[in-house]
Amino acid sequence: MSAVLPLCAAAKAAAPAMARASAAQRNAALEAMAAALEAAQASVLAANEKDVGAARAGGTSTAMIDRLTLTPQRMTAISDALRELVTAKDPVGEVVRGFALPNGLQVRQIRVPLGVIAMVYEGRPNVTVDAAGLAVKSGNACVLRGSSSAIHSNTALAGVLREALSGCGLPADGVCLIEDTSRESVKELTRARGLIDLLIPRGGAGLIQSVVADSQVPVVETGVGNCHVYVDRAADLDMAEAIILNAKVQRPSVCNAAETLLVHRAVAEAFLPRVAEELRQAGVELVGDTAAQQLAGAGPATDADWDTEFLDLRLSVRVVDDIDQAIGHIAQHGTLHTEAIVTEDRSAARRFVTDVDAAAVMVNASTRFTDGGEFGFGAEIGISTQKLHARGPMGLQELTTTKYVVEGDGQVRE
Amino acid sequence: MSAVLPLCAAAKAAAPAMARASAAQRNAALEAMAAALEAAQASVLAANEKDVGAARAGGTSTAMIDRLTLTPQRMTAISDALRELVTAKDPVGEVVRGFALPNGLQVRQIRVPLGVIAMVYEGRPNVTVDAAGLAVKSGNACVLRGSSSAIHSNTALAGVLREALSGCGLPADGVCLIEDTSRESVKELTRARGLIDLLIPRGGAGLIQSVVADSQVPVVETGVGNCHVYVDRAADLDMAEAIILNAKVQRPSVCNAAETLLVHRAVAEAFLPRVAEELRQAGVELVGDTAAQQLAGAGPATDADWDTEFLDLRLSVRVVDDIDQAIGHIAQHGTLHTEAIVTEDRSAARRFVTDVDAAAVMVNASTRFTDGGEFGFGAEIGISTQKLHARGPMGLQELTTTKYVVEGDGQVRE
Repeated sequence: MSAVLPLCAAAKAAAPAMARASAAQRNAALEAMAAALEAAQASVLAANEKDVGAARAGGTSTAMIDRLTLTPQRMTAISDALRELVTAKDPVGEVVRGFALPNGLQVRQIRVPLGVIAMVYEGRPNVTVDAAGLAVKSGNACVLRGSSSAIHSNTALAGVLREALSGCGLPADGVCLIEDTSRESVKELTRARGLIDLLIPRGGAGLIQSVVADSQVPVVETGVGNCHVYVDRAADLDMAEAIILNAKVQRPSVCNAAETLLVHRAVAEAFLPRVAEELRQAGVELVGDTAAQQLAGAGPATDADWDTEFLDLRLSVRVVDDIDQAIGHIAQHGTLHTEAIVTEDRSAARRFVTDVDAAAVMVNASTRFTDGGEFGFGAEIGISTQKLHARGPMGLQELTTTKYVVEGDGQVRE
Repeated sequence: MSAVLPLCAAAKAAAPAMARASAAQRNAALEAMAAALEAAQASVLAANEKDVGAARAGGTSTAMIDRLTLTPQRMTAISDALRELVTAKDPVGEVVRGFALPNGLQVRQIRVPLGVIAMVYEGRPNVTVDAAGLAVKSGNACVLRGSSSAIHSNTALAGVLREALSGCGLPADGVCLIEDTSRESVKELTRARGLIDLLIPRGGAGLIQSVVADSQVPVVETGVGNCHVYVDRAADLDMAEAIILNAKVQRPSVCNAAETLLVHRAVAEAFLPRVAEELRQAGVELVGDTAAQQLAGAGPATDADWDTEFLDLRLSVRVVDDIDQAIGHIAQHGTLHTEAIVTEDRSAARRFVTDVDAAAVMVNASTRFTDGGEFGFGAEIGISTQKLHARGPMGLQELTTTKYVVEGDGQVRE
């Protein structure tokens, strides 16, 4: 038996002190965390070098090694992100609604911290600090379980953050790192009922599915985005070209990048050859149905392609008979993340917006805009693709719950 | 294999039509459901008689038989409740927030139906109609699984409601009843991943725990209330007496009734003998710690008593040394439902409100006020005791999710 449950219990024991801390104390802790990371830069970078060395030795791809690597510049960016949280709007204590009852009772619904937030994530060590910062700002304790590839970096970072918390009079266990990076440790997290108030898996579809299937603690699913761009018969084709290029190419490795292009048959002949050329020049490999193979020179798409979040310079293309078929395709293959229509037809736009079930629906805009930063929410802990509690970019507010406070002078029920 | 998954699939297929229906159509459906129940009263009452007869033959308690029994008056109340929903504020389409981004994109976060709501409940057949009404009003399809004791009543009621939906041009499968009342059918519901958007168990602690432990679909826990009333050293003792009597006695079988009385040692001698007398006159059996046994003539409380939601005229009583011990007791034994303090001390009240983790915290008011009707929310589908998505009384708003709609004229990300 590993140390996961005792760690969760330690975080739970720390949660009341984190929740009781005033906004000034929590902001001071964020400042202290930022300063401590700057002071500890050398030791963190040394720890990171161990991870990078091991990744190199293990033949990890250059892209993955880049994601893993910390530099003085990146360390500065990490501290800056903590300081940006200081100025972010405090979610704790907000009165969501308030009213008086006929009998004189005063009711306020107040935003309060959730308690203990656990997060399972892959790859980049900056997520350790980002997640800890969001937890501290929102008055929560956190339990973090990063990947084995970043274990030395994460351990060094968490150590610095814990010491900074202590230095501010907050419990070090406000930030707990699970150093056991076995699969078993994730499973134990999903079983920590009564100790964890919210578990956020952030990573590939496999990780997320296994957490959701197993979990006995409340989970918010994030991030799997099989996003579609539908080019309607009434689309401005120049706009459509710019949007699909941006949605596919600007940053293909992220969840709000497009994976499938759906084109109305009426404009397929005019649109597909030209956009295929542009996409190919940008390095995109196309697969598609028969019509797309003919018009776009795409390779044949397999059944699995329509359900795959490529996260890469690869795009599946389908020609549809009408908007109904496009909406049907999205209902069958989408992941409730972001879906876009390009059209000048008001009624088609209205139809798409109403009938497509997703966290975000774009009309004449790139799928890439589904993002807490772009929406002006500040830092985000992920993009929820579920319907309960949070949908779309999750910021500080989504890391809270509410409590009704009812004040009276002796009221009883008739 | 029972028909649970096909039924869930049927509800899912009906969900888009339910969601697309205008508020006028959904309200017309509620009116039609109410009228159809009135027209079908004789056949529903005949079906109910079968359930009541079986319950009598099975030696069911008088109280349970009363809960099960439908009468013409109760049928009228059921129809009236549907008609009240017509005038309730429509949750669908509300713009929760909206803003423009610097690049001109217009963002609106819009309230939309969840899709398919499943509910598992015990006892009373009116819940079938109440749940179906809330689902229809909020644009959702529903899958209902009531208890075996009410199966004839529920089948008759659901049949009437389904026909009324069809008559309004909405899919009958907007309301699906699971006629298989085996435990296995609940288990299958918890496995209906991708078909159910929200599963609400409403009933005893055993039912709720088994659903939560098993579930692979999103669940909101409702209703287990081991509620405490803490009488502070600075309490107005007359007020305290009125509140604990109301909280315990006014309707002991419900989740917001009090189960434990905590009394500050400084006022125990003045308070306990008098309140014990009043409680006993109201038929309440007292169990307690040594001090409560001496001062209130209580029987000895077992360890289990402090964790038990009696739902009956039984109260556990403990004398605590201070407010910290009261808060600690609640943290250990409470179920995050409703906790009350009686005090004239402003700082004690503030402390209790901040440090007690519960859906509702009462100051100088009965625990019985945690209720959608009392809060002015109209009908409620249950009282959530979890922190995610909904906390406290769940009304129509809590049966929805949101969707971001982003409209532009060709914006792409830099």
